[in-house]
Parts: sequence; C-alpha cells; structure tokens
Amino acid sequence: MKENIRNLIDNNKSWQGRYFGFFIQFLIIVSVISFSLETLPDLSDTQRQILNAIELFCVLVFTLEYLMRIYVAPKKLKFIFSFFGIIDLLAILPFYLSFGIDLRSLRMLRLFRLFRLLKLVRYNRAMLQFTKAMILAKEQIVLFMGVTLILIYFSAVGIYYFENEAQPEHFSSIFDSLWWAIITLTTVGYGDVYPITMGGKMFTFFILLIGLGIVAIPTGIISSSLTKVVEEKKE
Amino acid sequence: MKENIRNLIDNNKSWQGRYFGFFIQFLIIVSVISFSLETLPDLSDTQRQILNAIELFCVLVFTLEYLMRIYVAPKKLKFIFSFFGIIDLLAILPFYLSFGIDLRSLRMLRLFRLFRLLKLVRYNRAMLQFTKAMILAKEQIVLFMGVTLILIYFSAVGIYYFENEAQPEHFSSIFDSLWWAIITLTTVGYGDVYPITMGGKMFTFFILLIGLGIVAIPTGIISSSLTKVVEEKKE
Amino acid sequence: MKENIRNLIDNNKSWQGRYFGFFIQFLIIVSVISFSLETLPDLSDTQRQILNAIELFCVLVFTLEYLMRIYVAPKKLKFIFSFFGIIDLLAILPFYLSFGIDLRSLRMLRLFRLFRLLKLVRYNRAMLQFTKAMILAKEQIVLFMGVTLILIYFSAVGIYYFENEAQPEHFSSIFDSLWWAIITLTTVGYGDVYPITMGGKMFTFFILLIGLGIVAIPTGIISSSLTKVVEEKKE
Amino acid sequence: MKENIRNLIDNNKSWQGRYFGFFIQFLIIVSVISFSLETLPDLSDTQRQILNAIELFCVLVFTLEYLMRIYVAPKKLKFIFSFFGIIDLLAILPFYLSFGIDLRSLRMLRLFRLFRLLKLVRYNRAMLQFTKAMILAKEQIVLFMGVTLILIYFSAVGIYYFENEAQPEHFSSIFDSLWWAIITLTTVGYGDVYPITMGGKMFTFFILLIGLGIVAIPTGIISSSLTKVVEEKKE
Repeated sequence: MKENIRNLIDNNKSWQGRYFGFFIQFLIIVSVISFSLETLPDLSDTQRQILNAIELFCVLVFTLEYLMRIYVAPKKLKFIFSFFGIIDLLAILPFYLSFGIDLRSLRMLRLFRLFRLLKLVRYNRAMLQFTKAMILAKEQIVLFMGVTLILIYFSAVGIYYFENEAQPEHFSSIFDSLWWAIITLTTVGYGDVYPITMGGKMFTFFILLIGLGIVAIPTGIISSSLTKVVEEKKE
Repeated sequence: MKENIRNLIDNNKSWQGRYFGFFIQFLIIVSVISFSLETLPDLSDTQRQILNAIELFCVLVFTLEYLMRIYVAPKKLKFIFSFFGIIDLLAILPFYLSFGIDLRSLRMLRLFRLFRLLKLVRYNRAMLQFTKAMILAKEQIVLFMGVTLILIYFSAVGIYYFENEAQPEHFSSIFDSLWWAIITLTTVGYGDVYPITMGGKMFTFFILLIGLGIVAIPTGIISSSLTKVVEEKKE
Repeated sequence: MKENIRNLIDNNKSWQGRYFGFFIQFLIIVSVISFSLETLPDLSDTQRQILNAIELFCVLVFTLEYLMRIYVAPKKLKFIFSFFGIIDLLAILPFYLSFGIDLRSLRMLRLFRLFRLLKLVRYNRAMLQFTKAMILAKEQIVLFMGVTLILIYFSAVGIYYFENEAQPEHFSSIFDSLWWAIITLTTVGYGDVYPITMGGKMFTFFILLIGLGIVAIPTGIISSSLTKVVEEKKE
Repeated sequence: MKENIRNLIDNNKSWQGRYFGFFIQFLIIVSVISFSLETLPDLSDTQRQILNAIELFCVLVFTLEYLMRIYVAPKKLKFIFSFFGIIDLLAILPFYLSFGIDLRSLRMLRLFRLFRLLKLVRYNRAMLQFTKAMILAKEQIVLFMGVTLILIYFSAVGIYYFENEAQPEHFSSIFDSLWWAIITLTTVGYGDVYPITMGGKMFTFFILLIGLGIVAIPTGIISSSLTKVVEEKKE
C-alpha cells in the first residue's frame, strides 16, 4: 500500500501520479481564486458559505496530501523540515489556527493561505528553474541591489534639496523623496509627484540619463542567470 | 492556364508574382485603413458609400484570390484546412455572413475583417521569423508567464491589504488591485490608481525593486529566441 | 596652399586639423543653443540682435568651410552630392533662402538649421558607428517595425471596441485609440487616456503581458547590431 | 603597534579587520539614516539633540579612522591624495568647516556628508566591479550619451513646433519641450505635459517607435561592460 501511495504522489510518470498532480494544481488555483473572491465587498451570505465550503474541501485534501507525504517519506523528520514540507504545512496551518484565535488577527492569518501558491513550485518546471537562477545569482543580485539603492537614495536627496521649498507637501523629507525616486527611476511615473522647479527638472533630466542603466542591472543579472540555468538543463 | 495562375499567386520570383503580391498587400492595407475610417464618428453618407465600395472591391479580389488558390492547390482539402487557407476564408467570410444576420451582431462580425492582417504573414519575412520564434519558445514563454502572473497576483494581494482601508474606491477587491499591479509592474503607471499609505508605498518600493527583473523575463525569452531564428536562417 | 587647407579641414591628426575640428563642433553647438534661445517667449530686442549676430557669424564660417571643402575635393561634383556635402549645404541654405521669402514660411525654414547637428556626425565616432549599425540592421528593423505596428493596431481596435461606449470622448475612433495603444505599449503611460470598463482593463492586462516583449524587439535589434559594429572595429 | 593597527583597518581576513569593517559600514549607514531623519519637518528638540550626538560620534570615529589610515600608509602623501584618501577627508570635512561658517551655506555643506556613502565602495565588491565597468566603457557611454542627447533635442524641437501654439503654457520654448522629451523617451510619462494636437500626437507616435531603441543604448553598454568585468574576475 505504501508503494501505491508513493506511486500516486511522487511518481509523475505513472498516470495516477499525473492525474493527482493535475488535481492538486487545480485545487491550488481554485483555492487562490476563492481567496480573491472573498475580498469582493458585496458578497451575499450564500456566496460566503459556498466559498467557505470550497476552502474547507481544499484544506481537507491538502491535509490528506501532507499526511500521505509524511507517511511515504523514508526519513519523516527530514521531509517535515524540508522546503516543500514546510510549505505544505504553512498551506494548511492558517485554517487550523483560526479556530483558537480572535477575529482581528484573522485577517493577517488569511494571507498565509497564499503560501499554497508556492506548492505550485513542485509541479512547475519554470519556477524550479527560476528558483535555481535566483540562488545562482543571489550574491550578485544582493550586491547590485545595493548599488541601485544608493543611486535611488542620492536621487532622493538631490530632489529634496531642489523641490522641498517649492512643494513642501510632496517633498517634505528625504523619505517622501524616496517615493519619487523609485517611481521615477523605474520609469513607472504615476504623476502624483514630479519636480516643478527649473533646478529639479534639470536634476531629473541628468538622473534619468545616467540612472536608467544602473537600475536595469539587477534585471540583466536575473535574465542572464536564467539563460545559463535553462541552457545547462538542455545539455 | 493552371500553370499561369500558379505563376501569378505562388511564384514570388516571376514579375507577375511580385506585382500580384504587392497588389494583395496594398489591398490588405487599404482594407484595414478603410475599416479604421468607418469608426470615425462623423462620417457623411457619401463617405460611407465610398468606404462600402472599397470594402466590396477588396472582398471581391480576396474571394477571387481564395478560389484561385484552391484551384491551383495540388491537394485542395489540405489547403482549405491549412493555416493560410483558414485565414484566407476568415478574411472574406464576415462580408458574406453579414447578409443573413441582424444588425446587432454585425459589430462583432466586422472585427473578423482584421484577420486580413494575418494574410500579410504570407508576404512578410519578419512575421514568419517571429511566428517561428514564438513556436520555438512557446513552452518557456507559457511557463514564465506563469511566474509573472504569480508575482502580479502577490503584488495585488499585498497592495489590497495596505490600501483597501485608505482607498476603498480604488482597491475594493483583489481584482481591482490586479489592475494596479499590472500597470505598475509593467512600468506603464497611468496614475489613475497609486498607493497613498506609508505601508503601501514601502510595499510598492520593494515590489518594484524585486519585480521588474521578473516581469522582463518573457521579453528576454522572445528576444533571444528570435535571435536564434534569425541567425539559423543566415547559416 | 591647397595642401595647407586640406591639412586644416581633412587631417584630424595634425594640430591645425584638430583645433579646426573642435572649433567647428563648438560653433555647431553654439548655433544650436542660439536656435533654442530664439524660441524663448520674452526676449528683448538687444537679446534678439545678439542671437542674430551669432547666427550670422556661424553661417559665415560654415559657408567658408563648405567652399574650402569643395576647393580641396579631388572630384568636386562627387563631394557636392555626397552625404556630407548635402548636409553642409543644408546647414547654410536656410539663411540665404530667407532673404527672398515672405515671413510665414520662414518658421519652417528655420527648422532646417538643425541639419547642422548632422554635421557633428563627421566628428563623432559614436554617430558613425551608430549610423553603420542602423544601415546593417536596416532591413530587420523595418520588418519588425511592421510586426510592432500590427500589434499596436490590434490593441487599438480592441480597446476601441471595449471603451468606445464608456468614454466616447477619449476613444472616439480607432485613430484616437492608436494614441492610447502607443502610449501604453511603450509603457510611457501619461494617464490622459486609460480604460475604465472591466472588459477594457482585462484586455489591457493581456495586451501588456503579451505585447511588451514584441515592442522591445526593434530595441534589441539595434543594440545587438551596434555591439557587432563596435566589436568589429576593435578587431 | 603600527602592525596591529594595519591589521585592524587594512586586513579584511583577520577577525579584527572583519569586525572593524562591519563597524565602519554600520556607522556609515547610521550616519546616512540620521542625515535623512534630520530632514523630517516636525522634529522635537530632544530628537534633534539625539541626531546631533549620533553625528558627533560618527565624525569622531571617521576622523580616528582617517588618522589611523594616514599613520599606517607607507607613503602618507600618496594616500592623502588617493581616491579613498580624498573620500575619507570629504566625509568628515563638512563637520569641521561648519564651525567657522554662517548658517545659510550650511545647508549646502550638509550635502557633502553624503560622500560617506562612497566610503562603502571600499567594502562593497559590487561597487568596485561597477566602478571598473564604468571606467572600461567610459568612452562609449560618453559618445552614445551624445547620440541620445541629440535625439532628445530633435524630439524637443519637433514637439515645440507642433504644440507651442496649442499649449503655450507647457511648451513655451525648446527648453520646456526638453523636459517633455526626456520624460517621454525614458518612458517615465508623469502626465504633467503631453501633446494634444493631432500633429503632436503623430510626431510622438513616430518618435517613440524610433527613439526607444536609441535611448536604451547606454543601458545596454553598461550591462554588457559589467558582464565582462564579472566574468573576468571569475577566471
């Protein structure tokens, strides 16, 4: 029997394993959509009850899956404290914790249900590749994130000195200016804050000319790291 | 005679074939411009009649072309159900269907006229290369689109929890927040919705620092896949 | 004497040639700044007279340079009809033409003075490399610009059908929608037009997910073509 | 004793050296945060005194560090006029200068405290790599920045001629139009200025189609230069 269960949950080449995989992935997506629907402001009581029923069913299946995975694992403790073991636990824990807890912290707890999305990593090849690429380039990403942060900080200080007097409501301190700096240097440009003085505009002009290449560095690192991982796999 | 027609519509090295190709491409563009002009709100009756006449002429030529292509095809059924065969039919079908149909669904039907643009693929080398590149990287694009969608979803959930109370009209549910997430992470930044709370701004700050590299991955995959296709062709 | 003049204007290794080159580049930039200053709305008469004097001086030097280049050219007609010969002429022509012309068309004529900036190509290595890269990838850029244009057109048609009824003032026809499409797909996102219906927002969501990779293709082609040109030069 | 101090401040392999390095980096970040907090508009007197005390402590440590570095340097003058020697001096100078100076210019002087961030370069590997990459590609970046500037200028002139009459308050001169050009071509798109005439919109359409590839060139150069530096180091 242990062999049968292992065939079901661990072997993605048998047809049982493939169907079980699809079923779990389907439930994860159903569970996430149901989570999103719960945030709609004008739900009727019936609708809420349906969503709760769906959630209950998902949790039951995920709990069963978790217990089966522990059952078939050769070293049970090793699985429980592995990455996927912890994710599997976090995906069901919020439901069981919600019984002994007052309503206020429930909202925060619900967010933990989103750990279920990480369960998809087990089935999604791209996410495995992506996770590998991130680990491979971790050190570089952290280092250049530092360069990017320093550039953003310098931009924020500069614009603060140019715009603070003209727009004290938008550039009241360097912390406010940091918001402008990230929105501008990532080229999002909402338009809620922008320089209006001649000096501030010229400063923005030069910061944009110089800065775009720097902010794009982490993007480039992730991309090239990913290319390496994909090509290694092909060989 | 069959040989002459084949020379005309299939042989892009003879001068007849080249001129016929240019003529069809020209008609496609005329037909698309005429389609756009029909949407102008203040057309006079004369202008409408001219546009209808142009449309009639285009459909006649495209029908003739379609029949000729069937006539010269060695295996007629194979052509009719091929990619280009279906496109050629869809390009003229809306016109003939519009006779037996009431006015309301006509609007939708008109949109099908745009399939004519896909007829350009036959003549446009870049579109062939592009289509090849997309097929080559199809699996990867779909997989990483998944990673991108999960990031966008996480961002939407996060901003919902930070901004929902402060701006219930803009962040009323996770579905509303998804609109913010796509507009921000693609750096479009219309400025119709943006965070105003301290927590929401800090969340956006970190999401932008981390997220831009991830959203750019499908772009990178398409580009590098295209480079491969172009270079293969050169060799 | 011909040898001396050739040394001055064509030999960028002699010190005379180098200084002459710097002088011409300096005058080009002075002339362009003076052109920009003329557009300031509140100039006094004295300021206008100074700008006119600067313009007169620049034209005189550029005319002298043009005549000298013709004088030292081995084949005079070949130089006159070469790229740089035409640019040199266009840089001074507006001034001489402005005598026999009424005031209204003068405004347009003034714009031709900006051809002087193209004179910089002669001295700027990057611009030569850039021009080479553009010529090398000309065919590809034109072809993929076509793919980009078709995507932009499809987006415009789609948003027109979703938003036309809700916002007839912003999406009154496909031509208006094209403005939205280019501003959105290049991620500029001014915020003057954006979808407000559920359907329009979902359409934008998918167009952005799919479209960004396509719009970035010409950018990628220019960059990789330039890399080739720069590396070829190094070898 | 000189050996001990050298071990402390120059040897990042001994545990003393490592802890000293962490301590200095920590102080730099504390000092920068304290600098940012000083710009908050509503600080109480106690809070200001705490910030002043922190600043005093940081300056004392940095001064001590500077003196120790001079003490252990084999050639003292060479260190003082080296890049890091000057940075170390600039990081403490503003504090000492502020005693003999009136209040108005103090604001400017405070900005010099940010040179402390450059002290991080000594400890941050990414910043060293980044500095190297910038030096390696310096000539190219400067040259193509020129191409970018010319494109931005042309765009500004064009939009000025299209929009000046319709929106004299936003496009009053070419200098105003330059602000539009940089914000549009970097795709920031705040939405404070945008074309409203048909001609201006069509001009923007084509400038965006053509221009994005050009503005992205310096970004590409920095990225590829950095990749080279990182890979060289690995070998």
